Amino acid sequence: MADAPYELVYWPGIPGRGEFVRLAFEFSGVPYVDLARVPAAEGGGAAAVTKLLESAGAGLTPFAVPALRHGERVIAHTAAILQYLAPRLALVPDDEESRLRAHQLELTITDFAAEAHDVHHPIATALYYEDQRAEALRRAPFFVSERVSKFFRYFDRALDSNPDGGGRFLVGSRRSYPDLSVFHMIAGLRYAFPRSMPAHEASFPRLVALHDAVAKEPRIAAYLASERRQGFNQHGLFRHYSELDTTEA
Amino acid sequence: MADAPYELVYWPGIPGRGEFVRLAFEFSGVPYVDLARVPAAEGGGAAAVTKLLESAGAGLTPFAVPALRHGERVIAHTAAILQYLAPRLALVPDDEESRLRAHQLELTITDFAAEAHDVHHPIATALYYEDQRAEALRRAPFFVSERVSKFFRYFDRALDSNPDGGGRFLVGSRRSYPDLSVFHMIAGLRYAFPRSMPAHEASFPRLVALHDAVAKEPRIAAYLASERRQGFNQHGLFRHYSELDTTEA
Repeated sequence: MADAPYELVYWPGIPGRGEFVRLAFEFSGVPYVDLARVPAAEGGGAAAVTKLLESAGAGLTPFAVPALRHGERVIAHTAAILQYLAPRLALVPDDEESRLRAHQLELTITDFAAEAHDVHHPIATALYYEDQRAEALRRAPFFVSERVSKFFRYFDRALDSNPDGGGRFLVGSRRSYPDLSVFHMIAGLRYAFPRSMPAHEASFPRLVALHDAVAKEPRIAAYLASERRQGFNQHGLFRHYSELDTTEA
Repeated sequence: MADAPYELVYWPGIPGRGEFVRLAFEFSGVPYVDLARVPAAEGGGAAAVTKLLESAGAGLTPFAVPALRHGERVIAHTAAILQYLAPRLALVPDDEESRLRAHQLELTITDFAAEAHDVHHPIATALYYEDQRAEALRRAPFFVSERVSKFFRYFDRALDSNPDGGGRFLVGSRRSYPDLSVFHMIAGLRYAFPRSMPAHEASFPRLVALHDAVAKEPRIAAYLASERRQGFNQHGLFRHYSELDTTEA
């Protein structure tokens, strides 16, 4: 198992929830296979993702992706994947307190991401945005004002409750995976809500500094400049619909 | 820490997400304090929950409850709480594969519960149901038909992928915490959607059998008959609004 390759199973064409996992690999410099980007002729592509969702083999078939395949193991749920990977990629301190802390932070990221998604899909994932636009228009102001503020306050306070972090690290005294995930949340929210984000950023300058510091980490900077980094677009978790980017709560 | 009491921090008056944790304690027979039900004069009640959400002390302040207080530790997120408790309460096998499996199942329960909640709150948790009733009426059929079926299929297949479970246990060859959580999901869905649940139950008889078997576990049966068990009502995760209990998809 230690020698087995790491395979990320996630949809092609979007950063989405898979990006939280990609960032962990990219930051740590540990090789991984992004299955959807492997040519279909070599067993990859979207068909390979669909196949896993139909049957994972002997183990638990995931409800959804991202999933991580590592040898015989298939692990689904972003926070569970990162909890599994982090000790192997040196992305979390060794002690139990730090690991409990990191997992809770990541589970809150999961909730935050789900709410960001449901802004454009408040009725059903089975419907197009255009078919639930009226409801999205009503939901957006609550998310853009109250919820983003509440989540940002949580992560900002987390900086305070980490005595070893100097206001710069969420867990311990160096980079851990929740830092990378906060980076992705902020990057995604900036894409989706360019008009309303500046006010939040002004209120939480340490989170912006955290985002910027992650972007400048050498391996992350190289990744962001590479073709491996897929741009945000209108098919993923974070989407920009001008009409939802309101500054009025 | 081993001798510290277990304290569940959750809102009074509803089973809600706290119930997944209560069931773990009740099944295992390990004593716990349900903080909200401790008299305010003794430091309990809703005010104690609010206080924790304002500041957890030295550690990470939870975004929301349930939280578990155990000595100096405060752990939030239902799935993280159960992952922490299960080895201590003998509610999961010892091996890593089983624990990964149980955690993934519980994280799927978390997602299922969030979707069940959002049926009656599709726009904002800050609004009353009555103020988002039109949107709820539109969301309900998607949940009640497609989503419930998809989640049930996932858990039913999980019975198949557990070679030691005989179709009766989700993890290993005896009762584990995901079994208890599936029990609560089904109990909640029956309360919320009495008209549409029978068809799902007919399609997934093994999940109904799992629910019934958990209800008959001696300590669970005693708990359900006790005053500690709070009934479902119109303030929690599972609510019955007749107009949302549709059989039309």
